[in-house]
Amino acid sequence: MTRYKLTLEYDGRFFAGWQKQKGLPTVQETLEEALRAVIGDPVTVFGAGRTDQGVHATGQVAHVDLNKPLSLDTLRRGTNFYLKQKAVTILAAQQVPDTFHARFSAHTRTYSYFILNRPSRCVLEEGRVWWVCCPLDLQRMEEGAQYFIGHHDFSSFRARNCQSRSPFKTLDLLEIQAQNDRIEIRFQSRSFLHSQIRIMVGSLKLVGEGRWTPKNIFEALQKKDRRFAGPTAPPEGLYLTSVRYPAAED
Amino acid sequence: MTRYKLTLEYDGRFFAGWQKQKGLPTVQETLEEALRAVIGDPVTVFGAGRTDQGVHATGQVAHVDLNKPLSLDTLRRGTNFYLKQKAVTILAAQQVPDTFHARFSAHTRTYSYFILNRPSRCVLEEGRVWWVCCPLDLQRMEEGAQYFIGHHDFSSFRARNCQSRSPFKTLDLLEIQAQNDRIEIRFQSRSFLHSQIRIMVGSLKLVGEGRWTPKNIFEALQKKDRRFAGPTAPPEGLYLTSVRYPAAED
Repeated sequence: MTRYKLTLEYDGRFFAGWQKQKGLPTVQETLEEALRAVIGDPVTVFGAGRTDQGVHATGQVAHVDLNKPLSLDTLRRGTNFYLKQKAVTILAAQQVPDTFHARFSAHTRTYSYFILNRPSRCVLEEGRVWWVCCPLDLQRMEEGAQYFIGHHDFSSFRARNCQSRSPFKTLDLLEIQAQNDRIEIRFQSRSFLHSQIRIMVGSLKLVGEGRWTPKNIFEALQKKDRRFAGPTAPPEGLYLTSVRYPAAED
Repeated sequence: MTRYKLTLEYDGRFFAGWQKQKGLPTVQETLEEALRAVIGDPVTVFGAGRTDQGVHATGQVAHVDLNKPLSLDTLRRGTNFYLKQKAVTILAAQQVPDTFHARFSAHTRTYSYFILNRPSRCVLEEGRVWWVCCPLDLQRMEEGAQYFIGHHDFSSFRARNCQSRSPFKTLDLLEIQAQNDRIEIRFQSRSFLHSQIRIMVGSLKLVGEGRWTPKNIFEALQKKDRRFAGPTAPPEGLYLTSVRYPAAED
């Protein structure tokens, strides 16, 4: 048994999310089927982040155990051959120790959320950014964002169906950058609650529009109740950009 | 008669180029139809650059004469309403003097060409970049690019069906920048010959791959014959990003 780490890019529009669901096209199943075509045996793939329908990845990480060792080049190119018609590709393959687990070994996950902030709708980036036509005040958003950084009870910022045992998470980084009418919000944490980023973005948008004060973010956190946070931002602006592991495991 | 300048974004994949052609969807015709829906009368739109099928724009400029003056907001929003299902949108509308001509007044056109240079095919940017899997040597490409800058006979770098009277053009700028595996090549000139940028890119790729020396660019220019330049790079990597006009006309 040899364990391989795979780095993946995919377009979330073409999948019902990462995780296998009966009768729906998912990234996990698409990848497992392509790997099976290469290996000849059924395989199970474990992903670092269970991205939702419509959420993209430029650096998702997964691992898979193979019965017979394969050259990294054969693994990547062979599997990508069977993925040619699919909206997912393996960017890199790497052999890893048996102790490596894409999901449980991960110590940092980084996501970016992109907003196109302009009066005219998006054309070239349709399905790949959140179009917000009302002008957003970045300084206000940054002020509000400060309340998210650090260790908090994020109960207000988790989907109602979130299955995580604890609502406590530590947000290491939240950076807002704008280039012309494109706003990028970067989030980094060991892990996130279900829809946490999208609810944080939906709330920051209220701050940027002036409908919320920056302090309202703090108050929403204090309430520990989903009803007091902003709406969930749409999935198409969200990208899983990288997953980091302790040096010994990687 | 009031003249308006329109700044446009479009996704070239959904059009058979800018210029009207019988029975084919073009940007020009799509825009004229949306404007007619707003105005009630047929109109003719003049574009700064006649982009080919598959070529995108984030800053194409066009002008149109309207019988009755319209507020800029009504013009932009009203027309965009009728463009909702189309892959083109008006980013800005501006009233201009009658002497303004989108095509003939333009003194600078800027295009960017994007290459995704990595072993795995592109997924998220399919149809929006040129995927080149063989590693490109940017320093060699930059060296070769120097030969293009300035005033030259670009006969080797024009499509066989190019209708321009003179093959002489002055390239003001050619900049190559890379961010991770994404290469952007920026071109700036008063105007370009048909397919000039795509043939320059196709030739620079040969230099980057090591199949041409940088000096081969110089030699291809000297030959003044299309057969001695590289292949035409595909349209999907090309974007018309801006068109500039003399201050008095804009």
